[in-house]
Amino acid sequence: MATKKFLVDIHTHVYLPRYASLLRSRSSVPKIISLNNQERLVILPNESTAGRPVGPQYWDRDEKLKFMDRHGIDVSIVSTANPWLDFLTPTEAQKIALELNDDLEQYCSTSPVITGPENSKALKRMYGFGLLPLVPEITTRSLLDAVKQISESPHLKGLIMGTRGLGKGLDDEALDPVWDAIEAAELVVFLHPHYGVDSSAWGERDNGHVLPLALGFPFETTTVATRLILSGVFDRFPRLRLLLAHSGGALPQLSSRLASCIDHDPVVASRLKHDARFYLGKLFLDAVAYGSEELGFVSDVLARARHYEKGARYGSSTTPRSAGSDRMLFGTDHPFFPPLNSTEKWRSVVENLEAIDKVQGWSSVDKDAVRGGNALSLFNLDMKQ
Amino acid sequence: MATKKFLVDIHTHVYLPRYASLLRSRSSVPKIISLNNQERLVILPNESTAGRPVGPQYWDRDEKLKFMDRHGIDVSIVSTANPWLDFLTPTEAQKIALELNDDLEQYCSTSPVITGPENSKALKRMYGFGLLPLVPEITTRSLLDAVKQISESPHLKGLIMGTRGLGKGLDDEALDPVWDAIEAAELVVFLHPHYGVDSSAWGERDNGHVLPLALGFPFETTTVATRLILSGVFDRFPRLRLLLAHSGGALPQLSSRLASCIDHDPVVASRLKHDARFYLGKLFLDAVAYGSEELGFVSDVLARARHYEKGARYGSSTTPRSAGSDRMLFGTDHPFFPPLNSTEKWRSVVENLEAIDKVQGWSSVDKDAVRGGNALSLFNLDMKQ
Repeated sequence: MATKKFLVDIHTHVYLPRYASLLRSRSSVPKIISLNNQERLVILPNESTAGRPVGPQYWDRDEKLKFMDRHGIDVSIVSTANPWLDFLTPTEAQKIALELNDDLEQYCSTSPVITGPENSKALKRMYGFGLLPLVPEITTRSLLDAVKQISESPHLKGLIMGTRGLGKGLDDEALDPVWDAIEAAELVVFLHPHYGVDSSAWGERDNGHVLPLALGFPFETTTVATRLILSGVFDRFPRLRLLLAHSGGALPQLSSRLASCIDHDPVVASRLKHDARFYLGKLFLDAVAYGSEELGFVSDVLARARHYEKGARYGSSTTPRSAGSDRMLFGTDHPFFPPLNSTEKWRSVVENLEAIDKVQGWSSVDKDAVRGGNALSLFNLDMKQ
Repeated sequence: MATKKFLVDIHTHVYLPRYASLLRSRSSVPKIISLNNQERLVILPNESTAGRPVGPQYWDRDEKLKFMDRHGIDVSIVSTANPWLDFLTPTEAQKIALELNDDLEQYCSTSPVITGPENSKALKRMYGFGLLPLVPEITTRSLLDAVKQISESPHLKGLIMGTRGLGKGLDDEALDPVWDAIEAAELVVFLHPHYGVDSSAWGERDNGHVLPLALGFPFETTTVATRLILSGVFDRFPRLRLLLAHSGGALPQLSSRLASCIDHDPVVASRLKHDARFYLGKLFLDAVAYGSEELGFVSDVLARARHYEKGARYGSSTTPRSAGSDRMLFGTDHPFFPPLNSTEKWRSVVENLEAIDKVQGWSSVDKDAVRGGNALSLFNLDMKQ
């Protein structure tokens, strides 16, 4: 009998009840409003409509479990959704970060138990990404306390982070002690967008949420990852494990252009240890791209990265894309992208699973790993007993 | 004896002497300034340094020919560089557009003659993309006059266009008569970025020009093409031939996400005739991406487009990426990206040629076509005598 293969969702969000209450108490974005007896969540700046309808699937664990069961998802690594604590004062952010981390640990630790793959320990259905109180004027001490809390919470396996940092972005050197602590604690950082780019880029035509979601989110992720590369974070913290949302946005497709622009710019040409493409091989990327050609290409870019280490002879050999798939992980983006019409399975989930299944050049072993095995390894859930 | 294969550069810019004089006369960006006896071009808003050094290679045709000879480029399809006429009043823009189009026709028509591929007519070394006076408050009549002028100039094979249109972007329905005229004249529109995105995205760290060039330019191209798709331009003008700079920016990698976001958004879900990915197959993309994995992926996305035509059964067959290569065209971005150190050949050019040569899954016929044959076809330069 074949060993059961696990499906693990590493990109799935929760608005914990405490966080939802906070949003309900607010009069400015982000907020949850009531409109015609329907709660609506408004999280994006300059949203052209009154947000999106929300309900129990945003906060109720039973709804998450139902969604998981319906789609055959064994384990979810759950994260608080954007915009996290970005809108709070340091005092507020510090207090609620610790509370939400405890809430999430409880949410996960009391989730159902399942039997893991053969010869592995039993698993819970839920694990989590904690939160840091990452807002302007927070003390480094508060950030390090939250890192410690997360690392001591048995069901929290990493932390989710937006792109603002202390107000100057993540390439701010003031964050070096935080990267250092995260690296030492072996926590995974899930980098996730929220702000997109200035909405003037989208023009006057009403295109709903399409442009900020389809383009703005990936542009933001691409920018934060590029700025991190340019700041030398990956040279200073070579064991840092960053997971980028939405398959890294546009970074894979722009990575050779990035390398060329660096080579041709006197300000930065000598700053980095390696060609920019080398650093992509240090990243983990979710497989939330909705297309098999995209996923295959992303794995090409991960696979080629080692040829761009300083001293490596580029082009001396080609690494098959299969070798890049071990840093890619299935995700759903639940509870976002629900189907417009009631359907048994969510189209957004089905498309991401089909995309994995159809990648040319990935073996069935690679595909199983992207669906679950890579996540079990990355989050240290597959330790032999 | 094998037929001579042509190398055609479709992404190569000129600052015609009349345009350079205009920039020298200005005191605000865009402008050419003199600093320590060196002329410098400042074209990007919020440039962190005093632009870049410029010299004869920006305006002197002999310098362009020397560059072509040094890199084995037989034919260049030359275009005025950004920001074109965007900063002028309608009256100024209309006058100088007509003058610059005449200048460029002369620049090309008096360029050296070469013998074309076997059984083809003789070719010039230079052809051109003309300009429209595309500024706010210009009359449709003025725009159509320029389209007519270009279509009647034997060596102008299309026109280059920025992303602002009449001030509201290219998804402005007021441009429909212009698209109609361009489609009827069978001119190729070269869409090129200039503005990037709001510079607050780049943060405080000095990264030279890297972020606006490596990311801002492709983000802008991606945005304009997406907005065109969402506006239905490709449904209304199905024979319009748009060529996107820099291999379409990030559009290929974000195209399945775009399709998913459209499907899930009630505002736009029913607006378009086809899945968003179908429209990518209507585009032409330059091969200015500096990496073979990027180019191969772009051709995957072009090749799969026909499966996303309404009524086509997705996934019923896989089209090899080779089929997408016929819409991709070699380019250099000359005179930008000169080597930091004096070298015989420009690294940026060598990298783009190597990238074409190394694409997995492209035949030698495909590669020859990307290097030149596709351009000869697209610009109608390969008519049998």
